[in-house]
Amino acid sequence: MRIINSVVEMQQQADRWRAEGKKIALVPTMGYLHEGHLSLMRAVRNRADAVVASIFVNPTQFGPNEDLERYPRDFERDGKLSESVGVDVIFAPQPADMYPSGYQTYVEVTDVTGPLCGGSRPGHFRGVATVVAKLFNIVEPHMAIFGEKDYQQLTVIRRMVADLNMNIEIIGYPIVREHDDLAMSSRNVYLSAEQRGKALRLNLALKEAQGLIDKGERQSDSILARVREVLQPGEDVRIDYAQICRPDTLEDLTRVDDRALLALAVYVGATRLIDNRILTARS
Amino acid sequence: MRIINSVVEMQQQADRWRAEGKKIALVPTMGYLHEGHLSLMRAVRNRADAVVASIFVNPTQFGPNEDLERYPRDFERDGKLSESVGVDVIFAPQPADMYPSGYQTYVEVTDVTGPLCGGSRPGHFRGVATVVAKLFNIVEPHMAIFGEKDYQQLTVIRRMVADLNMNIEIIGYPIVREHDDLAMSSRNVYLSAEQRGKALRLNLALKEAQGLIDKGERQSDSILARVREVLQPGEDVRIDYAQICRPDTLEDLTRVDDRALLALAVYVGATRLIDNRILTARS
Repeated sequence: MRIINSVVEMQQQADRWRAEGKKIALVPTMGYLHEGHLSLMRAVRNRADAVVASIFVNPTQFGPNEDLERYPRDFERDGKLSESVGVDVIFAPQPADMYPSGYQTYVEVTDVTGPLCGGSRPGHFRGVATVVAKLFNIVEPHMAIFGEKDYQQLTVIRRMVADLNMNIEIIGYPIVREHDDLAMSSRNVYLSAEQRGKALRLNLALKEAQGLIDKGERQSDSILARVREVLQPGEDVRIDYAQICRPDTLEDLTRVDDRALLALAVYVGATRLIDNRILTARS
Repeated sequence: MRIINSVVEMQQQADRWRAEGKKIALVPTMGYLHEGHLSLMRAVRNRADAVVASIFVNPTQFGPNEDLERYPRDFERDGKLSESVGVDVIFAPQPADMYPSGYQTYVEVTDVTGPLCGGSRPGHFRGVATVVAKLFNIVEPHMAIFGEKDYQQLTVIRRMVADLNMNIEIIGYPIVREHDDLAMSSRNVYLSAEQRGKALRLNLALKEAQGLIDKGERQSDSILARVREVLQPGEDVRIDYAQICRPDTLEDLTRVDDRALLALAVYVGATRLIDNRILTARS
């Protein structure tokens, strides 16, 4: 496994692979890898000739009051884990190489970035779309894989790729959970033992929602009321949003008649956790 | 020469060329070709294995009160001219194929789109950057060539390519002029014989400015005052802007001490003409 820090070197490596007719897969990450990331790497290992994992804590997708500075980092461990699942190259650029002085270009996806996290994290998806467009141009992948935990991010990227005619296959990968069903996230490390117990309510609420639908409930309002009860907002738990929306456009749905996305963002202590589930109603 | 209308077919053709190791050059145009366009095509003909000329009157770069509907078109003539200079493929997509229902992604270049045409044509460069990014992803060129008449457009595209790490060489080509030194433009066809005479003042003003500098003048204000005199604004001539700025960032310059861009936009009748010149002061 090779570690490349330079944008130019990464592009040259990608050009060489392309000239040799090799298929390139990209797994974009912000590092501090967990089993969710490793699952993405394993999923593309057999579909591509060269697997690149990017590790870059992208400053432009963090808001001014967010956790950019304290975002967890462990590059050495990330390297060992990546190598263990057959990654060929870790691409780990420096912020000053990605955003040099005079930098001024942004990719804006409009409609699907409005609801959900777009409401609470202004500018976040502009940062995400821009850095992913840059990574695509640097690594020149034939395919890129993203976890469905960041469902809206995946939607934004699919939209950008389709709209800008990027010649890249986007693969979504199901949420990977801890033994206790907490969705894997690098931010889980922020949780105390007590907070961790409360964090389990997110997935319980998702399951409860599907349970209500299985019993015949179709009204989003009723489902969301029950979701809020299960989340038990209080001293250490604050709901940022709990919404039921169309899985493709992320527009609000008042009824669940077929497939719907239930998306949650909840602060547990100072830690913002997200989780989601596709609800399915059988008619 | 082949004519391709479908985005998917164009991308497949580009993929085949790439797989064969061929170098692809793109000449983006809005059609109604003139000698300026043909010069761009000839300039890349010997540098690339495959030359693609795109012909697309891009709706998103026209403002609501601009000339989208009456922009001149002559596809048959464009085809013959392109073939005569060795173009391999004309890519002529339909607006509905480029911007299907639900389209919502835009490339924004910020600082360099502010002055000059950015002031009088809000959204214009967003439309330009977005369509060029799309064309780059569809045609997958190794190089693309743009005329320096649209100096700010070339600056915006260079900035976008650098910022988004697009692996494409951008070539600027000097302004091509008519026998009477009017800068070639598809919009020149709008001019009456009398207006055409007045349109010549743009290039006269550019020459006059360099003449003043050769005589020792360095103050932008004095140079621009003389430029306005030469342009003689009046009944049929209205100055949109006449500015002296840095050739790289397009920021205003109060003095011309080395190289400076003198950029003009002037309405002659209802027709908006642009022209420019790099002024050089020898110390």
